[in-house]
Amino acid sequence: MSSTEIYVLEEVELNNPVFIEALPGIGHVGKLAADHIIDELEATKFAEIYSNSFPPQVFVKDNGIIESMSNELYYLKDVGENHLDLIILVGNTQALSPEGQYEVCKDTFDFVKNFGIQRVFTLGGLPVGQPLEEPKVLGAANCEENIEILKEIGVEIRENDGGIVGVSGLFLGIAKLNDIPGTCLMGETLGYFIDASAAEAMLEKLSVLLEFEVNTEKLEERAEETREMLAKAQQMEQQIINRASGADGEDLRYIG
Amino acid sequence: MSSTEIYVLEEVELNNPVFIEALPGIGHVGKLAADHIIDELEATKFAEIYSNSFPPQVFVKDNGIIESMSNELYYLKDVGENHLDLIILVGNTQALSPEGQYEVCKDTFDFVKNFGIQRVFTLGGLPVGQPLEEPKVLGAANCEENIEILKEIGVEIRENDGGIVGVSGLFLGIAKLNDIPGTCLMGETLGYFIDASAAEAMLEKLSVLLEFEVNTEKLEERAEETREMLAKAQQMEQQIINRASGADGEDLRYIG
Amino acid sequence: MSSTEIYVLEEVELNNPVFIEALPGIGHVGKLAADHIIDELEATKFAEIYSNSFPPQVFVKDNGIIESMSNELYYLKDVGENHLDLIILVGNTQALSPEGQYEVCKDTFDFVKNFGIQRVFTLGGLPVGQPLEEPKVLGAANCEENIEILKEIGVEIRENDGGIVGVSGLFLGIAKLNDIPGTCLMGETLGYFIDASAAEAMLEKLSVLLEFEVNTEKLEERAEETREMLAKAQQMEQQIINRASGADGEDLRYIG
Amino acid sequence: MSSTEIYVLEEVELNNPVFIEALPGIGHVGKLAADHIIDELEATKFAEIYSNSFPPQVFVKDNGIIESMSNELYYLKDVGENHLDLIILVGNTQALSPEGQYEVCKDTFDFVKNFGIQRVFTLGGLPVGQPLEEPKVLGAANCEENIEILKEIGVEIRENDGGIVGVSGLFLGIAKLNDIPGTCLMGETLGYFIDASAAEAMLEKLSVLLEFEVNTEKLEERAEETREMLAKAQQMEQQIINRASGADGEDLRYIG
Repeated sequence: MSSTEIYVLEEVELNNPVFIEALPGIGHVGKLAADHIIDELEATKFAEIYSNSFPPQVFVKDNGIIESMSNELYYLKDVGENHLDLIILVGNTQALSPEGQYEVCKDTFDFVKNFGIQRVFTLGGLPVGQPLEEPKVLGAANCEENIEILKEIGVEIRENDGGIVGVSGLFLGIAKLNDIPGTCLMGETLGYFIDASAAEAMLEKLSVLLEFEVNTEKLEERAEETREMLAKAQQMEQQIINRASGADGEDLRYIG
Repeated sequence: MSSTEIYVLEEVELNNPVFIEALPGIGHVGKLAADHIIDELEATKFAEIYSNSFPPQVFVKDNGIIESMSNELYYLKDVGENHLDLIILVGNTQALSPEGQYEVCKDTFDFVKNFGIQRVFTLGGLPVGQPLEEPKVLGAANCEENIEILKEIGVEIRENDGGIVGVSGLFLGIAKLNDIPGTCLMGETLGYFIDASAAEAMLEKLSVLLEFEVNTEKLEERAEETREMLAKAQQMEQQIINRASGADGEDLRYIG
Repeated sequence: MSSTEIYVLEEVELNNPVFIEALPGIGHVGKLAADHIIDELEATKFAEIYSNSFPPQVFVKDNGIIESMSNELYYLKDVGENHLDLIILVGNTQALSPEGQYEVCKDTFDFVKNFGIQRVFTLGGLPVGQPLEEPKVLGAANCEENIEILKEIGVEIRENDGGIVGVSGLFLGIAKLNDIPGTCLMGETLGYFIDASAAEAMLEKLSVLLEFEVNTEKLEERAEETREMLAKAQQMEQQIINRASGADGEDLRYIG
Repeated sequence: MSSTEIYVLEEVELNNPVFIEALPGIGHVGKLAADHIIDELEATKFAEIYSNSFPPQVFVKDNGIIESMSNELYYLKDVGENHLDLIILVGNTQALSPEGQYEVCKDTFDFVKNFGIQRVFTLGGLPVGQPLEEPKVLGAANCEENIEILKEIGVEIRENDGGIVGVSGLFLGIAKLNDIPGTCLMGETLGYFIDASAAEAMLEKLSVLLEFEVNTEKLEERAEETREMLAKAQQMEQQIINRASGADGEDLRYIG
């Protein structure tokens, strides 16, 4: 009995769109890259996704107006040389529990599958131990064909050194069960730092794969905004985790 | 499949009521203020709310009679200069899990929405580091209009410094999705102390917003009662958390 | 969507039975007392209760045969001077999660309510700091009338010093919602020790309340058996808790 | 409302098959033994099992292709002197939560029961404190008859020294409720080491019980492969546990 609620803001028809997932994750490499595409190419939000598995909180924005925890779907039409349609999944959170992760992924996938998606890209970060002059982008996929494509454009293949935790992994698995080719791009990052250069490297590879152009001039400015939002978010989330695990003397009931 | 059970004690008709949430939270500022309104203005309890997400326990009161964990809805008719009807949500607990928090909020909101609520107020506390001579009341809202109203009556707007965790946040988000204007009032408090002066400051602002009068003479006396109840509650809750997180050698199965 | 499964072993008709809950808890005072009644008065098991919220494990008994985690319902007919019928709830576990605690309680209550139960007793332990020469039995109830009955027979009323965590509390609350009088007897105990003298004190009070006789000669022998069973159980449960809370490097997936 | 999804890859008819469970567990003794049978006797995969209770992640294999968390069912026909049909349950994970453990077990059991299974074997490990020259295989069962069979072939009976945590225990309990005889074989192992000699001892006993032969020459080679896979898995799982329990400053939302 899923608790995922999808609010459709605009009925839209898309032509075999590419689905790109970029929810908050390690170093927010994917989120930063996707938010930049949405801004630069002026994507349109057409759906909001809510779940009981999201953190039970709201953010307070600069003007005192609250922002609920949610995922959002944007679309773009006729992008780049191949005139591609895109669906981009972004948001301010992922589900807290394992069950919630699966549930929100499946419900979101079922929703976007109806638009006839033909390819899936998930954008994540890969934590590295030291600062990098030139962060690489690594790749994994749910089919041989996509691995070959990644190799052709010079994306290093991630091999047998762990896995992909969270939605960036789950969407590849769900896509595979639906016979839809999927690729995960992972930008090397220090992880605890919103990393404009990692996002830039990722945008570059994504531009080649999807054959579109995106101006990265304002990327550092956006990184700064994201840093501020996240400092706030992480502080709240740590509070919830501490409470849930009894690390301090308070718990959820004493908030509010 | 929600486990929320709402027992209606009295069928009541209300005229576009204002909904006020004041469940236990930081410093119990909201709870103390709302309990005081209920007592002074002689509000009538008309519904009890139970959930499997509440802590699995009962309190033992002074006379040896047990009290279940529950939320309660009270109504008031024809209050103040504007002859407002009010629905007030109070109780001795909030849900333990994130999923439970969302579930109880949604089910409660669906219930009160049927009474035609036009505005939502959520009352919470905001922890501050040191004792305050004159605790302020800060505000946030789910729409621009309410922010303006708060500014007009001298409530400081809380800006971009975290968020609102728990039901006081969630009700604002749910109200927004239902196009109902909502405001959160947060009373500055030390947090670990039941703070009559914070509740008094909050009652003052609420009186202005809703244009009604409430005598605050007995507030300190009520604060004392609340302190005793909470000392008991927090002790039990800490036990549950410790057990759930394995911090001691016992667990839920060995209680009872 | 409850996962509680109740297997009926014998269709039985009972005459307004008294329901007694005695699941594992603090010092296993209630469990020891109830197991003794079942044994001495030769009660008949008529139902087994299973739940997905019980610990995911089985015990291995002396002969190498496994025992599932379960609760069990026994009945007795025509007991004592008042010819009472009894339903006794015992078992080797309580649910692990808060939600599970509520769910199993409600489903069990709905099942026994159909037999026309008129009174509810829950048997628990109350931890005390030091060894006691003569452990007392304290009481709480869900109605004034039961408090008076307890006072009449010399049971000290527990007042405002905490609460009752787990099923012994929840059954009182559920009974109250169903207008069925309920009493909790709590035997003082060191808690970490299976305490035959605490169970004997409890049996004595219960005998007076229900007007029946039970020979307590074999109680110490039974206490010894229970100690062995519990040493085993607590060891396993601690393992599960440690794993669930990440206290060691293993988790549930690496068991089996 | 179960989230277990069973994908049938091949419709197959089996003749009163024996069901063997060998999911990842202590020392991976069972998993190693079962994977070896599948490989040597060329078993056919006929179903894949997915659950929202599995860890929310995918593995990345050597070639950069992802592998979802799943359980798998293989069949073998006409094995050994008794021409037995077998169903073997293997996989790369067990469910994370207690509720998930029960749910996946029950759903899997319901599925294989339809093939007319007559016997159940669950294969696990039993951690011992020091390295063993000749690891023993211990046994437990859900009926007297199976205990006698184990004794006849020289399997030591495990008596009253704890229990069986996870699916290897749960399947025995579920089989018992379905009147199907079940046996658990537990190979002594250091636990943190993939132990080819423990798996070999288990295969030997299983060969006698089911009267079939299996070449164990390549067992050490397979052990090595399993070690590599598990090093990867355990690292990821520890990350999830740490996050879920707040042991580090990150949580699930910041992965991906």
